[in-house]
Amino acid sequence: MSELPIRDELRGIQAYGAPQLDVPVCLNVNENPFPPSEALVADAAAAVADAVRGLNRYPDREASELRAGLAAYLERESGVSLRPEQVWAANGSNEVMLQILQAFGGPGRVALSFAPTYSMYPEYARDTATTWVTAPRREDFTVDVDAALEAVATHRPSVVLVASPNNPTGTAVPLDLVRRLHDATEATRTVVVVDEAYAEFRRDGTPSALSLLAGHPRLVVTRTMSKAFAFAGARLGYAAASEEVVDALRVVRLPYHLSAVTQAVASAALRHADELQARVRQLRDERDRLAEWLRSTGLEVADSDANFLLFGRFSDRHAVWQGLLDRGVLIRETGPDGWLRVSVGTPDETAAFTAALTAVVGDGARAGATVVTGER
Amino acid sequence: MSELPIRDELRGIQAYGAPQLDVPVCLNVNENPFPPSEALVADAAAAVADAVRGLNRYPDREASELRAGLAAYLERESGVSLRPEQVWAANGSNEVMLQILQAFGGPGRVALSFAPTYSMYPEYARDTATTWVTAPRREDFTVDVDAALEAVATHRPSVVLVASPNNPTGTAVPLDLVRRLHDATEATRTVVVVDEAYAEFRRDGTPSALSLLAGHPRLVVTRTMSKAFAFAGARLGYAAASEEVVDALRVVRLPYHLSAVTQAVASAALRHADELQARVRQLRDERDRLAEWLRSTGLEVADSDANFLLFGRFSDRHAVWQGLLDRGVLIRETGPDGWLRVSVGTPDETAAFTAALTAVVGDGARAGATVVTGER
Repeated sequence: MSELPIRDELRGIQAYGAPQLDVPVCLNVNENPFPPSEALVADAAAAVADAVRGLNRYPDREASELRAGLAAYLERESGVSLRPEQVWAANGSNEVMLQILQAFGGPGRVALSFAPTYSMYPEYARDTATTWVTAPRREDFTVDVDAALEAVATHRPSVVLVASPNNPTGTAVPLDLVRRLHDATEATRTVVVVDEAYAEFRRDGTPSALSLLAGHPRLVVTRTMSKAFAFAGARLGYAAASEEVVDALRVVRLPYHLSAVTQAVASAALRHADELQARVRQLRDERDRLAEWLRSTGLEVADSDANFLLFGRFSDRHAVWQGLLDRGVLIRETGPDGWLRVSVGTPDETAAFTAALTAVVGDGARAGATVVTGER
Repeated sequence: MSELPIRDELRGIQAYGAPQLDVPVCLNVNENPFPPSEALVADAAAAVADAVRGLNRYPDREASELRAGLAAYLERESGVSLRPEQVWAANGSNEVMLQILQAFGGPGRVALSFAPTYSMYPEYARDTATTWVTAPRREDFTVDVDAALEAVATHRPSVVLVASPNNPTGTAVPLDLVRRLHDATEATRTVVVVDEAYAEFRRDGTPSALSLLAGHPRLVVTRTMSKAFAFAGARLGYAAASEEVVDALRVVRLPYHLSAVTQAVASAALRHADELQARVRQLRDERDRLAEWLRSTGLEVADSDANFLLFGRFSDRHAVWQGLLDRGVLIRETGPDGWLRVSVGTPDETAAFTAALTAVVGDGARAGATVVTGER
């Protein structure tokens, strides 16, 4: 690449990639294990056939029907009433994040988050020339309000980004944190982004930041159809915010960024939201059972409101990851040292994972997979 | 928006939008007037049904099958043999441009083009914090090689962007210009981008810059399925370049930027390339007939290798545009003052346009639509 004027901050960097290995049980990228139903397949195919008949024309630039459908879904899911003009959609919530940073971040500006958190955020910041800073989470992965407010006062970010539930820890933040971050940044007019990619998996009693949108004009809540809708391959992320925020995103979005086909299949999936939400309830139960099992073996498990669990700690987590892979189970080596992340799959996949983990940890000494106990 | 920390350069800007009016004859955004065939509709719907069955999983991040299909198509279309690793695909060629500027432009760097040219380029530069400069084209909209080389020496751009054929003028550049731009920027390692969005419409004898890829490692040729493939609604743009360039784009692309559904419908369209190319030949003939007719009425027409014509000049082009709209024909008020751009449509649409224009220009005095004659 020395031949090319590639930017210094990109030099020598490999393209992002969770390892894509051909393994019987893939629990590494927090996918929903349940494929779309044949009813949804048929509905989507019919919708796409209709869309293809008009593909010689540009798509609806405003994705009006889809955004109305998303607003209606959010109201059913969270009880919060939103106008379609408050909802924005793009090719994955990562494109939504990029647009947020293009509009409100960029050169000379700072985006702040709380680490450990989603490993892609700093890349979005880099790709928009936004300065990326983090403040640490507590040992239990929650965010300390005072420390967060201090970080805001120190860094004066134009964007604060909080994942809730957080990836890779599964930790949801209380609404009080979001409210206080918003209130404390009145002077700097900071945009407070709550990334709720996994929100549908939250436990009973965990609130969504959607309920704060009224009265918090600088708040943005992002969601995705990748997880709860089992639609990772469709690339449909969205945001709910004030109309002013949406209008700013409309300025930086590429013209016709969302294809007519994407709009059609996403709208089809919304028509099947109920059946998809039943799967979400199954996965929540599966997660809670798996967390209980992991703890019963003496492992630590971070409380999770998502469709994955961060567990550990291991003196040599790579050895555990490799041991699982050797047994046909791919999970993710990510997060703080000593921890591993496993996605919640089907009951069969859980069984394969627990069997493999038992074998690996049972072989602890040989595999270098000693479980770390005691104080962190 | 004063409430929000929107970037200064975005303040007060309205989102991009060619007027989307409900008009019988739309010749304003260079769409292909021929909708996909029912054979393609059926093929795409079947391919999407297959894709939807696996949508709970992330898509192929590398879009390998699609890129191989695009490479094979380019070889058939232009005779240039390319490896799939030399082809890159994204959501519209505008996303390809954004990625090029993210990788090779950005803060502190300059992108150079030759004006008048595509009105969206400066927005992509703005959204990547790249400094945008232009050098003027000649009066006949061609690019003067010496002036271009002088501009390169003055501005030392990291990216030079040449649309060929150019939008809105329809002007293709000779390969010699591309070759000399590449050679003259050896020291600055400038990436030379030739935007061939409309290349399939080029006249016999007009070459494609694809033929220069071998031996020019900093050359990027971008294409799109929007025009020749009548697939504007599908949002599939692509680029051919050295593998080193593609690898740089892979670093800045959002993970999983291209949905499994987009990959499936685009691959389906490639299987129908022959029928689509027959439509392209029809449109080229239609364009040449329309250019001839316009000239026969005493109007100037820029030589066009695209599916549109820039014609004029009018003392009050807005009055002509409005007069056409009043008669149900929407064209585009764009380009240098006095000129208008019309997309090439079906024979019926051409007939509607020529009838409306005859009426408007016949009413010239009343409509303020005096044709400007004489020297420019």
